Order: sequence, then C-alpha cells, then structure tokens
Amino acid sequence: MSETVRETTIPQAAPHHASRWECFKSVRELTRRLAAPLSAEDCTIQSMPEASPTKWHLAHTTWFFETFVLAKIDPRREPYHPKFKFLFNSYYNAVGDRHPRPQRGLLSRPSLDEVLAYRHRIETDVLDAIAGAKLAPDVQALIDLGIQHEQQHQELLLTDLKHMLSCNPLRPAYQKNWPLTPIQAREPRWIRVAGGDRQIGHAGDGFAFDNETPRHKVWVHDFEMASHPVNNGEFIEFINDGGYRRPELWLSLGWDHVTARGWEAPLYWEKRDERWHMFTLHGMAPVELNTPVCHVSFFEADAFARWSQARLPTEAEWETAAATLPVEGNFLESGALHPLALREAPPEGTLAQVFGDVWEWTRSDYSPYPGFRPAQGAVGEYNGKFMCSQYVLRGGSCATPTGHVRASYRNFFPADARWQFSGLRLVRDA
Amino acid sequence: MSETVRETTIPQAAPHHASRWECFKSVRELTRRLAAPLSAEDCTIQSMPEASPTKWHLAHTTWFFETFVLAKIDPRREPYHPKFKFLFNSYYNAVGDRHPRPQRGLLSRPSLDEVLAYRHRIETDVLDAIAGAKLAPDVQALIDLGIQHEQQHQELLLTDLKHMLSCNPLRPAYQKNWPLTPIQAREPRWIRVAGGDRQIGHAGDGFAFDNETPRHKVWVHDFEMASHPVNNGEFIEFINDGGYRRPELWLSLGWDHVTARGWEAPLYWEKRDERWHMFTLHGMAPVELNTPVCHVSFFEADAFARWSQARLPTEAEWETAAATLPVEGNFLESGALHPLALREAPPEGTLAQVFGDVWEWTRSDYSPYPGFRPAQGAVGEYNGKFMCSQYVLRGGSCATPTGHVRASYRNFFPADARWQFSGLRLVRDA
Amino acid sequence: MSETVRETTIPQAAPHHASRWECFKSVRELTRRLAAPLSAEDCTIQSMPEASPTKWHLAHTTWFFETFVLAKIDPRREPYHPKFKFLFNSYYNAVGDRHPRPQRGLLSRPSLDEVLAYRHRIETDVLDAIAGAKLAPDVQALIDLGIQHEQQHQELLLTDLKHMLSCNPLRPAYQKNWPLTPIQAREPRWIRVAGGDRQIGHAGDGFAFDNETPRHKVWVHDFEMASHPVNNGEFIEFINDGGYRRPELWLSLGWDHVTARGWEAPLYWEKRDERWHMFTLHGMAPVELNTPVCHVSFFEADAFARWSQARLPTEAEWETAAATLPVEGNFLESGALHPLALREAPPEGTLAQVFGDVWEWTRSDYSPYPGFRPAQGAVGEYNGKFMCSQYVLRGGSCATPTGHVRASYRNFFPADARWQFSGLRLVRDA
Amino acid sequence: MSETVRETTIPQAAPHHASRWECFKSVRELTRRLAAPLSAEDCTIQSMPEASPTKWHLAHTTWFFETFVLAKIDPRREPYHPKFKFLFNSYYNAVGDRHPRPQRGLLSRPSLDEVLAYRHRIETDVLDAIAGAKLAPDVQALIDLGIQHEQQHQELLLTDLKHMLSCNPLRPAYQKNWPLTPIQAREPRWIRVAGGDRQIGHAGDGFAFDNETPRHKVWVHDFEMASHPVNNGEFIEFINDGGYRRPELWLSLGWDHVTARGWEAPLYWEKRDERWHMFTLHGMAPVELNTPVCHVSFFEADAFARWSQARLPTEAEWETAAATLPVEGNFLESGALHPLALREAPPEGTLAQVFGDVWEWTRSDYSPYPGFRPAQGAVGEYNGKFMCSQYVLRGGSCATPTGHVRASYRNFFPADARWQFSGLRLVRDA
Repeated sequence: MSETVRETTIPQAAPHHASRWECFKSVRELTRRLAAPLSAEDCTIQSMPEASPTKWHLAHTTWFFETFVLAKIDPRREPYHPKFKFLFNSYYNAVGDRHPRPQRGLLSRPSLDEVLAYRHRIETDVLDAIAGAKLAPDVQALIDLGIQHEQQHQELLLTDLKHMLSCNPLRPAYQKNWPLTPIQAREPRWIRVAGGDRQIGHAGDGFAFDNETPRHKVWVHDFEMASHPVNNGEFIEFINDGGYRRPELWLSLGWDHVTARGWEAPLYWEKRDERWHMFTLHGMAPVELNTPVCHVSFFEADAFARWSQARLPTEAEWETAAATLPVEGNFLESGALHPLALREAPPEGTLAQVFGDVWEWTRSDYSPYPGFRPAQGAVGEYNGKFMCSQYVLRGGSCATPTGHVRASYRNFFPADARWQFSGLRLVRDA
Repeated sequence: MSETVRETTIPQAAPHHASRWECFKSVRELTRRLAAPLSAEDCTIQSMPEASPTKWHLAHTTWFFETFVLAKIDPRREPYHPKFKFLFNSYYNAVGDRHPRPQRGLLSRPSLDEVLAYRHRIETDVLDAIAGAKLAPDVQALIDLGIQHEQQHQELLLTDLKHMLSCNPLRPAYQKNWPLTPIQAREPRWIRVAGGDRQIGHAGDGFAFDNETPRHKVWVHDFEMASHPVNNGEFIEFINDGGYRRPELWLSLGWDHVTARGWEAPLYWEKRDERWHMFTLHGMAPVELNTPVCHVSFFEADAFARWSQARLPTEAEWETAAATLPVEGNFLESGALHPLALREAPPEGTLAQVFGDVWEWTRSDYSPYPGFRPAQGAVGEYNGKFMCSQYVLRGGSCATPTGHVRASYRNFFPADARWQFSGLRLVRDA
Repeated sequence: MSETVRETTIPQAAPHHASRWECFKSVRELTRRLAAPLSAEDCTIQSMPEASPTKWHLAHTTWFFETFVLAKIDPRREPYHPKFKFLFNSYYNAVGDRHPRPQRGLLSRPSLDEVLAYRHRIETDVLDAIAGAKLAPDVQALIDLGIQHEQQHQELLLTDLKHMLSCNPLRPAYQKNWPLTPIQAREPRWIRVAGGDRQIGHAGDGFAFDNETPRHKVWVHDFEMASHPVNNGEFIEFINDGGYRRPELWLSLGWDHVTARGWEAPLYWEKRDERWHMFTLHGMAPVELNTPVCHVSFFEADAFARWSQARLPTEAEWETAAATLPVEGNFLESGALHPLALREAPPEGTLAQVFGDVWEWTRSDYSPYPGFRPAQGAVGEYNGKFMCSQYVLRGGSCATPTGHVRASYRNFFPADARWQFSGLRLVRDA
Repeated sequence: MSETVRETTIPQAAPHHASRWECFKSVRELTRRLAAPLSAEDCTIQSMPEASPTKWHLAHTTWFFETFVLAKIDPRREPYHPKFKFLFNSYYNAVGDRHPRPQRGLLSRPSLDEVLAYRHRIETDVLDAIAGAKLAPDVQALIDLGIQHEQQHQELLLTDLKHMLSCNPLRPAYQKNWPLTPIQAREPRWIRVAGGDRQIGHAGDGFAFDNETPRHKVWVHDFEMASHPVNNGEFIEFINDGGYRRPELWLSLGWDHVTARGWEAPLYWEKRDERWHMFTLHGMAPVELNTPVCHVSFFEADAFARWSQARLPTEAEWETAAATLPVEGNFLESGALHPLALREAPPEGTLAQVFGDVWEWTRSDYSPYPGFRPAQGAVGEYNGKFMCSQYVLRGGSCATPTGHVRASYRNFFPADARWQFSGLRLVRDA
C-alpha cells in the first residue's frame, strides 16, 4: 500500500574541483534521483501556495537553462514548447508573464514523462554547449548560476515534498530506512568569539550569489555562541514551561501567529499517547531529544532564545564565528534527510554542527550589503527584489547539497515560515 | 504532447429491464471507462473546493458500496483499509469524521492503481452478494441507491474534470473527435401548457430519490414554454446588448457576482480575434450559434430571461410540461459530451430537447415537498440536509447517463454554480 | 455614566383612517422620537455591514421622499445638498451611484444636527405638497410607499441600534424601564387548519408592497399549527439536549455556520453564573422562560423544529392560518421593545401572538408570486431584485410599527440573519 | 455645512527647560486643543484597523497615566471606571485583557464628554502628585514616559483623523487656513558625509526611548546625501515615467501591493481635470511641486530611489548625517499640519529639512541595537516586541510636537503604511 517505500540512492556530489561539465551533469543527475522514488501523482500536487510540485521543480530548473543559457547562446533558438516559457517562469518579470504561483498544482499536463523528456533534451544541449567551442564568460557564469540554482531547488523539492506528504492522513514515507541513532546528551557550552572591526561577505574566486557581495567592513561586539544548535529536548522544556502560552516571550507579530494558527509545537510535531512524534521523510517517528530541533519559524526561534535569556545571532556574528570552519556536516548526500545528533564530541572550545543539519535563523533581516549591485539582466531579479520582510538563515541543512553553501551564504525566509529545515543556535553578549 | 488525445469508447447503458447484477456491473464499468483516457496525474488534481479529483470519485463511489451495502450485509466485515472510511466519506456525519473536502487534491496516495484495486475488490464482493442468497429488501434498495449514486458521480467526474482541464493553459482535450455539426437556425416557438390542479413528484415502482416524494397536488397557472432551450446565438445577443453591464437585468446578489468576479460571458468562453470560443471536453472550439447555451449560473439564466421579457419556469411548471414526454435525448452515452444542436425539427407544437443536452434552471429553490420524509439511516443525509439556498434544475444533460433521469428528477446547485452543463428554457405567463 | 438611560415616549400610531397628511406627519415624528434618546455618537456608528447607523436611517428615509416624491413633483427642483444623492441612496441603481454600504459608519459629517435639519426641510415640503393642489395618483402612491418605507426603517433603526449597543462591553441600555413580568407557563396546543384550494397574496384597496401581489390560488394540505410561538424555556431544552452539537438536526449549511461561528445559543445570549442572560434594548436581563424566543436564524429555527419532530410552516400555510385574525399584538408602540409573554390565555382553539412580538420564520424562500410584476420606475428595485437566497418571515414584531403589517406581508432575510426580532412557530402535518 | 471649519489655535510647546509639572500640563493641554475643533461624531469613528478614534486617543493616553503612574503611587487606588482598564489598554499583555483593536470604533459610550471628564480627573491627580511630596525616581521616569507617549499619540491623532476625514466623500477640512505658499524650485545637491567608525544611539541625560539605546559603535561607509527630501514635482516625474507600472523598479512584495491595491500615486492624491490634487487637513488642494512628497510607503520610497539611481539611507547613515544638526523645522506647533516648501535657501553644503516636515524612510528594519534591554515592567512592551517586519523612519514630521524628536529617535511602521506623514531623502554611495 501507499505507505510502503521505494529505495533511492543519492549519488555523491561531484568532487570540488570537477569541471563545469561534470558539475552540471552530476547536479542534474541528483535532481532526477531525488524524484525517482516518486509517482507521477506525488510529483503533481501543490500543498500550499509557498510550495511547488516536484514536477514544477524539475521543469523550472530546466527552463532556467533553456531561457538564460541556451537562448543566450543562440537567440534564434526555437523554444522547446511555446507555452513552457509561461508555465515554468517562477518570478522573472523581465522575461514575460507567467502562470500564477498558487496554481502550479493545477497542471496535470505536461506529464511527468514529458517533463523528463524536456529535461533530457535541454540537458543534452547544455552539455554539448559546454563541451563545444569556448563559451563567453557571461554564459559560463550563467551556467554556474543555473547549477547553483538547481541545487537550491533540490532542497526545496525535498521540503515541498515533505509538506505535501505530511498533508496526507496516510503519512506516507519518502524513504524507508531511518537514519537516527539516539545517543547520549551533551551539554551545550558557550564559546567566546572576539568581535571588533571585521569583514563579512564574499570575495575571491569561487562562486557566490550577488547577495553575498560586496565583502565589507562591519563592527562586531564580542559575544558568546552555543557550541551546538538547540535540540529537541531543550525545545520540549520550552513547551512544557508554557512557551507557546506566554505572550511575554514573543514578538508581537509572532504572538499573533501563535494565537491565530494555534501553534503548540514545531511544524510536523504531533502528540501521541503523551509523547511527541514528528513527521519525517521516513514517516512518523518519535522526537529524539538530542537531535537539533527543526521546522521552527523565526518567531519560535526568537521566543525560545528569549526564554533562554539569550538571543539569536546577527548574521555578522554568525559569519564571524563560522568564517574559518571547514564546510562539513550532515548534508543531503548523507542520505539522512533529517538532522542528526552529533556522535562524537567536538574538541573543547569548538563549534559543532555549524554547517548542515539545520539552517540557523539569525536576527538579521535580509537586506542589501553596503554597495550591493544586483547582477545584470533578468537574473538581477534572482535575489535583490526579495530584500524585504524576510530573515536570514545560515549554514545549510540536511537537505542542502554538499558544496552548495559557505560561510557567507545567505538563505532567507519570512518570519513565519516553518517548512524548511530551520533551527537555531543561541548567542549572548560577552 | 499533452494536448493530444486518447480514444475512449463509452459503453451503452444497460437495457432498461436489466437485472440488478447487470445494472451494477455496467454502471461500474462505465465509470472505469470514463477514467480510462486519463493519466494518474489527471485523476489526482482538485481544481476548486466544489470539485473533486477523478480518483476521489472512483474511490468514494466504491466506499459507498463498502459502507452502506457490504457492512450492512456483514457488520463484522473487516474494512478494506483502515483510513479509507475517513478519506472517502463525502458528507455523512452519521458514519464518522472525514477528510476535509477542499483537501481532496492533496492525496497522491492511495495511487490510482491502488484505487482501481479497491474498486475491483469491492465490486467483486457486491456482485457476489447480488448473485448469492436473496438479499433483504433494504439491502437491495441500498444497492439501487448506490447505482444511482454512482451515475450522479459519473456526471460530476466529467464536469469536475472539465473544470480541471480548463485551468491548464495548455487547454488539453479529454476526447479528440468533435461531435458538432452546425445546422440551420430554428426559431423557438411558444407552446401553451394548461395548468390547473396537478400532481408532481414521484409515485410508483421505479427508483426515485427521496427528494422526489411524496407525489402531491399543486396549483399551476396556465403558461407558455419555449419549444427549445436558449441557444448560444441568443445568448450572444444578450451579451452584445450589454447584458453583463446592466444591473437592472439582474437579481441583486447576481449583480454582486457579476461585478466581483468580472463575469462577461458563460464559463469557459473566451474571445479570440473578436469571436467567441469555448473550452470543451474536446478542447477549444468556436461557439456554435444553434447549440443550447450551457455553463450559465442561475443568475445568468434569470437575467437572460428578464432581458427576454420572459421568465424561468417553476419546477411544477417544468414537470407538468415534461410529465408525458419520452425520456430521450443527448445523454452521456451519445459520446458527444457536449450539448448538440437539434438536427430534425420536432413536430409542430412539441417541446424539444427537454431531456439531455443541458440541465434547465428553474425559478424554484430546492425545498422539501409537502410530507417529505428523508430516508432512514445514514443515507437520510443524502438529500434532505441540502434543502437550503440552492435552486432546482431539471431534465439531465449531455453528461447524464441514459436512464438516470426522469420527469420528477430534481437536481440542485447554488445560484452561482456554472461548472455543470446548465442552461435554461424560457416560459411566460399565458 | 454611559449605561444610564434617558426617557423616551413613543407616540401612538396615527389612527387607521387618518389622512395622508396626518400619517406622514406621525410616522416622521415617530422616527425622530426613536432617535431622541441617542447621542450623536450613538447615531454615527455602524456595527456590521448589514446594519446602518441611526443617522443614516434618518437621512435615507428623507432622501427617499426628496428623490422619489419632491423631484417627481418638480423635476427642476434643486437638490438639498449636491452629495446627499450619493451618500443616502441605499441600492437604487436607476438613480445613480452610491456610497458603499459597509462604509456608512465612516461619515462623521453631515452631523446629526445637519441631518435633522435636512429632515425638517424635506418634511415641510412634503407636507406642503400634500396639503396643496391635488397630487397625481402616482405621486400619492409614492408618498404612501415612502411612509411604509420609513416604517420599515423604524424597525431596522432599532435592530441595528441594538446590535451596535451590544458590541459595547459596557452593554448600554437604550431605554431604562423594563417591561417584562414573568408569568405562568402555558402549554402550546396544536390547532388544526384546513387546507385545500386557497388564495394568498394581497388584493383590494389598502396599501401593500408589490411583492404581496398578485393574489393567487395555491394548494395547501391540511396541517396543525402551534397555538404560540416557541418560547425561551423550550429553546433552552433544545440547547440542553445538545441542539447546537448534533449535526443531524441541522441543514448542512446551517451546521457550517454553527461550527464556523461557534454558535451555542441565540444572538445576544450570554451565560453568567450558569444562567442564561440576554442583551436587550433595556440592557442585560435574565432570559425569561415564557417569552417567545427571538434573535434566532432560519437555521436555528429549522433545527429546533426538526428536534421537535415538527417543521416550519410554508408561507402559504402561515397566511392561510392568519388570514382572518385581527392584526393586534405587541408592536413598537407598546414601548416594550421586546417580545412579551402572553398574559391572558386566548380562547381555546385560537392562535395567539400571530402578529407582533417576533417575526416567524417560514420554510419558504422569498420568490416572486405567479404573475408578479415589479412596480414601475426606480422603485421597482424595492423588492423584486432581492428574491434570491432569502427566507420569508411573517407577522411583525415588537419593533414593527402598529398598522404596518398584515396577513399578506412578506418580510425576508438571509438564512443566517439573527439580529432581527426573529422567532418561530411550529407546524406539523395533519 | 460640514465642510466648513472651526478655528483652532495650537499652543506653543513648553520651553525646553520647563519643569515636569509644566511639561505635563502643556502636553495635556495640547492634546485637548487638537481635539477641540472636532465634533463628538468626528471623535468616535475608526476608519481602519490600524487607526484609532480621537476619543480613544484621548482616553488611552489618560489610561496610561492612571495605570502606570497613579496605580504605582497608590496600588490600592480605586479605578476611575471598572471597564476602562479593558477598554483603553492598547497592547500591554502584562496588565490584562483588552478590547480588540479593530473594534475601537464601536464605542459610542463613554461619550466624548465622559472621556474629557476622565481626562480632567486623572490630570488633576497627576499634577497633584508631581506638585506634592518627592516622587520615587521610577515614578518620575514613568511620568516622563507618559508625556512622550502622549506626544506620540498627538501625531497619531492627527494622522488617524486625516485618514478618517479622507474617507468621507464630503472631504471635510479639519482646519481652514491653508499654510502653503508656492515658491521657486531649488535643485537638490549631493552632500558628502564622511563615514568610518561612528557611534549611534542615545547616551546622556535627556529622555530617550529604550529602543534608542545603548549607544554603540557601527561602521559607516562614506556616502552622499541629498540636501532636501524628495518633493512632489520629482515624484510626479516618477509617476509620469511609469513608476507605478514597471515591476523592475520595485521590491517583489512592493509590486504585489501595487497590483493588488491599484496604487497609482501617494495616498490621498486624486487626479482632477488632469492635475494632481491631494486631501489635506485643510481639505482638497492642488499638489504643490516644491513641497516634500508625503504619504508614501517604504515600497514607494524604495522604488523612487531605485528609479533615481540612488537609494534610501540606512539609519546609521541618517543619524551620522543628522547628529550635529539643530532639531529645528516645521513641527506640529507651526500650525501648518502639512509639509512646507523651504522658503530660504540653506547655506551651501548643509542639509535642509532634516527635522520636521516629513518622516524619512530608511532602508533599515526595526531591530534591537547590540546590547538592547527593554525597560523593566509592563512598559517593557512599549517598543521591543514590535521589532519585526517594520522599517525605521527618522526626523519627525509636521505633525510631531516640537521637542519630541532628536537625531537618535527611531519611528517605525510596516513597509506598506502610508497614512503617516512619511517621505524620503535619497543617498548614494560616495
């Protein structure tokens, strides 16, 4: 029956110094593998306006290459299908009208097979282009952007899918094998980080989004950061202490959400027989106490921090603390598809789980860095126009592809969003 | 590509005097045939809260037999699936909680294949039950009700599907071959119907829903009825005469809908190059002038009638006029799946197209007949509780299975509903 | 403080055979008296889109005479104020645009004094016109319509005011002296009414609205009607028996309202110390058991009737039963402004409290009588365009001016409306 | 008639070194004067959920002194009225439940006179308390906070009143005499401001809100600031250049507002005979080209800046530029109640109209300063809990009382708010 599970094997990320051809090929392959365990029906449903069907993710990432790469190389190129430009444009006003976002789930056609054929055709053409005559630098940059873009949609594909499956009373699993091994608790420690006259933002050779630039000076005050993200056990203490019933712990808007939506716990949590359980990509599971809490909104993260007599970091603080750490952790390729408790204690005085597991909410709204200039052309709409009423998250999650994030990477969501793998890490003034 | 078309063949209805076993089998077979040209994706989407996915129709009609027939025969019978009782109950409070109607489109599982397996199993058991030892009369009645119920869902399956396909910018067709042959216009004539002391409602042996009973006396004034339903050509005259811009033609609530929703024509109509086209189950087609207009709301029907200096019939008038006519016309089995223009002139003084083609809005709200008693048990929720704020339609349509309607049959929808094959026929005082 | 009370004295209605001049004068005077105890602030607030501020009622009834009477007598007459035509038109599309209904409470200007001055001026001119040269018959008819119209607004002024005051946590009273004297219970009896071939609707000389015509034949089945309206004590039994928690008692739409709005009792009822109290125009008061229940919706009336194994009357039944009774009862001029328990037992076999006290919901939707023609001109919008999705109430209430109703009078409200003095009387099949 | 006007005289602010007794007295007096030209009806209406009736402002500012000052001095003090605690609490969860904000306009009682009596009584008691025995320092601080609080409500009283009057088709004026004298245009100049290692926030003796503290170090890059706020003439160029029709100029959320609400110009602007007019507290007036634009949202300010190839300042930039300027300008006491064009050219190289005229939107979201601690007790809810999804405005406006603002003062509103006197000043990177 439908709750049963098909196996998937997630391929490893292309090695760090892979060529553009290899990168492109392996990223595209990973997307396809993520969709492989799903039926056409699974790929078609949109469970809320903010989420998209898997089929749409498969098509839109392809549309991106067709529109911004292939049409750039050959402006007279015939569109693959006359309506796809309209159907699979996400939000680029500069390239024309588009199908309304809340209606992405009304499309039984094109079928999943047709979308996969579309993927194959565009993919082949891009691979040929990369392998062929030397491409202009702006085209190369657009291919790299398209690769990063597709990686972002890999994470969204999983989080949107998780939400869709959670809406089904059958609580079907995406993947059977459950990765968690409960372990001994470990006390978080406060680790001091020296502030002062620091630099944040991206500079140098590697890929970065425009919103990470320019690298610039900021003044950071000394602070202390928790060695680990907040875990489920700590969050249950907050709940048990009336966390969701005490307005004094919440931002005013946050309290409005708590009361209007009846929030009592993180998204996907359900109490069964007096014990907390949660829906995961592996089906329902008991809440494990030592695992980082996730699926909390900015409002819940902020309220938890206030209850803890601590606070959320600013993004400058977070980046300062993370700047020199290796970008390692529980990413998509681990196959866990869920945050994991730490198995080995990190060396005394070091921060653990900074990358991977859960995105960490910061106290910083998503706004332009001093001197920010959006990218030229239609892709200038990629980031800049969303710099309003959203908050920055840092560090990547268990659904982020390996190699996609870095210390300067800025993810962003509205303060009430809960369907990402979003958690938090505390800081306090030194 | 997705706009292309797969062939379907609609089987003929079981002959009128078929046994219960044959009736059940042929009705179930027809439902399956209606779904046959559709992909699993097509069967999964819900395009508005009032409509249901094809997969849901397939499962719900099966749930009806499992719940009301098989569980009646054997109360200890194990449910086919522990959650189906919850997932596929439509609105029967007496048999427990249910999945919210607006969320029927969030179910990728059970899959279409699983639903078809469910259908097969329940179907086999019902056939065995019918063929086996003599069933109690109330079980026989419930099987007959289930058959009629499934026929109602055949029509809804098509109208819901049509709405879903219409939401897709690709405007995909359900069926390729287009049945319409434009013909010469024929003037409607007024046909006098004598009123007086009449009887309406069902009495006698054949099947009827509880809402058609009891047969009772009414006083009908003499009136005149149009020989044909209003056709598209006449409706275009109404549009061209400012019909959708003149509040004096509309009921107050109707005018609120016109302005709030921007209605300018019947549902599914689009103007392309100054000509009206419409979406049909065969794809987009030019509006044919001599075909009965359909996909109009009660409000539009009423406004058109006022513009025509005529009015809609009461249901007593309609039934009086239709009582002695043969129940023949363009029904589902014709395969047209669209109203058709009349090819041969009917004899002078007779009403044409009374049955089939389009449901005809009446001026009568849906309310209980004098002495009405709902059926006993949970199926008492079938009709009676909806007797509020809906209007009665009569005569069946091109999507109604042959043999399903009769002169006393009462269909009902809210005054703003447009996605049924709903048209109108004028009357005027004698 | 604001809960205190100013005295008002409600003048008696003009005697039945008063002249048009006297009628007009006394009706206008009564409106002014109804507003007299109110402050300008009281007269300004709109508490919901369906209700209007007192100031608006004062102005709109005056606008009616200015627009339909004075401008008819002298088409070149200068408007009293260039914007009043826009501000105080209720819903007459034929006389131009209008201020949106939900924004009637945004008008601090014109002030109450200015509106009273407007009233005075128009009133004087109408009185002069009546007293002067003989008026054309259609003008006479419009004056009579305006008088009846103003009486309707007298009732609405009180029910809208009551709603507004009820929204204030101070629960202020409109009038101090409380009229109720609890009395002994009296058992309702069933009184048989003979059906057959009957006539309903208005015919003859007196005033009637167009919606009461033409008088026409209907077939009525024999039935039995309760001697009294349902009282509060009976309604409390319904509540205590889970009436608001049992979906099987309700129409489907009614149950939707119960759950969506959390209805647990009639409007204005509050439980204090385990006893039901209600807000009245005299402030908060305990619910008196022998008084007719009021402020119930059609849905609640229908559910109560089903729980009682009875039903609501059709309007034909109601009118048949009431046709020959004297139009007497607890009307506005009694000054009670609340339904009253009956003090003296009526003679055996007679219906009591048919007129006055509470409007009685019927099972009949508000639709045109056979042969109905709206009045000519803009006043044709008065009634006909509302004949959709409303239910008919009969008999008048404690807020209806004496002389305003008659057996054929049709009041109408949507099925969920509760802010009128609306109750019910049961019938059952003979 | 209602458009006519009563005179008001706005008293001058208490001199800077006035005693607490004098300050309190003069601020209270000013509030009363602001309400003096209004009728009780004017004071009762709430025109949108974000705005409050004048009567509510009069009562709430009084409640603040009763609750936080008088009850602090004498905890056994009898409340003035048992329900006022509930009715006039704005948002302080710590002091109990409260009347819902969107229902503030449903209160005809207490009357304006009763509210004024309430004001008088509490005022007298506070004055006595100040004049009496030496008050504890925390009580002194709460009185000072109450004074500042009342000043904030003076501005809100005017902006809420303006919105309410603007909803009336009569477009009534609050004050007759129109203060504007059109003058010659003056070109804005770019004035360089040196960045570096700067301090912002309040420190020292004078009053400041908790949200201005602590004073802290920030890094500011060199920038250039426009000598004047953007004026109406420049804004009309933006409109004429398709500013409201070009999505590329807008933040994504801003564009959603433009399309959903049909914005085509600042709030209160109307085109009459091809010329822009606007509603002011003096009635309708032509838009004067050299006057600072106001009633624009953050979204419009941001779009205008993008169109100008400039940007909005951060709050650190704004405060750096303003830090040493005298706090002088067109404030409430000028009686203009509208931004004014500058009459004399400021010295070369100086910023003009930094204080007064219009609040200037910054690019900074409203968030806590490093080391921020809310005030102790219930008044800790004053500012901190609103630090989410709002943007900071600086500098005060023509409706801000003299002496109320300073360079470190942080006002804040949501990005779509337009009913404040909000304008903008451009900056660009050096």
